[in-house]
Amino acid sequence: MTGVVLHLTEASVDKHRAVLRNALNLVPEVEPGTPIELVVHSEAICLALPGQATADALAEALDAGIILVVCRNSMRQQDLTDADLVHGAVSAPSGVGHLVARQRQGWAYLRP
Amino acid sequence: MTGVVLHLTEASVDKHRAVLRNALNLVPEVEPGTPIELVVHSEAICLALPGQATADALAEALDAGIILVVCRNSMRQQDLTDADLVHGAVSAPSGVGHLVARQRQGWAYLRP
Amino acid sequence: MTGVVLHLTEASVDKHRAVLRNALNLVPEVEPGTPIELVVHSEAICLALPGQATADALAEALDAGIILVVCRNSMRQQDLTDADLVHGAVSAPSGVGHLVARQRQGWAYLRP
Repeated sequence: MTGVVLHLTEASVDKHRAVLRNALNLVPEVEPGTPIELVVHSEAICLALPGQATADALAEALDAGIILVVCRNSMRQQDLTDADLVHGAVSAPSGVGHLVARQRQGWAYLRP
Repeated sequence: MTGVVLHLTEASVDKHRAVLRNALNLVPEVEPGTPIELVVHSEAICLALPGQATADALAEALDAGIILVVCRNSMRQQDLTDADLVHGAVSAPSGVGHLVARQRQGWAYLRP
Repeated sequence: MTGVVLHLTEASVDKHRAVLRNALNLVPEVEPGTPIELVVHSEAICLALPGQATADALAEALDAGIILVVCRNSMRQQDLTDADLVHGAVSAPSGVGHLVARQRQGWAYLRP
């Protein structure tokens, strides 16, 4: 089953809140079982760190089955490792590479 | 015939003007009859309300056949109904759901 | 071989730097020989002019094989011709038209 990738690069808390809401709103709109990934890179990876203002909204999204994918290129630039991420986040070698690979697999792409 | 969806989420008048121009510029570039939809959600739905600074540019886009699609999830959050929208705008249950559905149908996606 | 288009519309130097880095990071993630195009229109076309703060980063991207595609609709609005662009940049009649055409050809789309 092909899924949906949402692409986020900004650091803004307001933007993070909006995109998490967009992702949640998408859940009832797609076939049950459709994977939805929120892919963060560059300044946006702070979303995946503990103690953020968006922690509750992120937890709600993860509980709803949304997958948070964090770019390891961006993590390396900010001296972060997988151990620094919130429980439930996963990392991928390259955010942009991951987004291209998903489209090659037929996934839809959203840049909210 | 598959079409093109343009995705807009920002409230900025300058952004609205630019995206309306992008949509108009696209018309002569696609096969005649290709549907072009401008999908607005979140803060961007003010574009579809009467009395905006972009009213003339929007009227020109609608006259050129561009379809303005407004997210009903966002309308509900802002206490708006279809009766509040400019003549010619249409609504969809979910902006992000609509954008995914269009891509499933083979439409191209632009986020200007 | 289908490629990847990256879409850029903003004028900000910081944004230009980030997107050039995204493009470079993509090179090792795709199959060798995959074309990667950075398509600029609207305010973003200043990236393609000589003497910008991003000149070195752009040169590095062009050296890595990334193709810079500049919208001629936007050039016309800013009284620019091909002769004004940095060596190595190419122009297309319409930025948005080009992005749609590439997706029709199966290319992946990124809006970093």
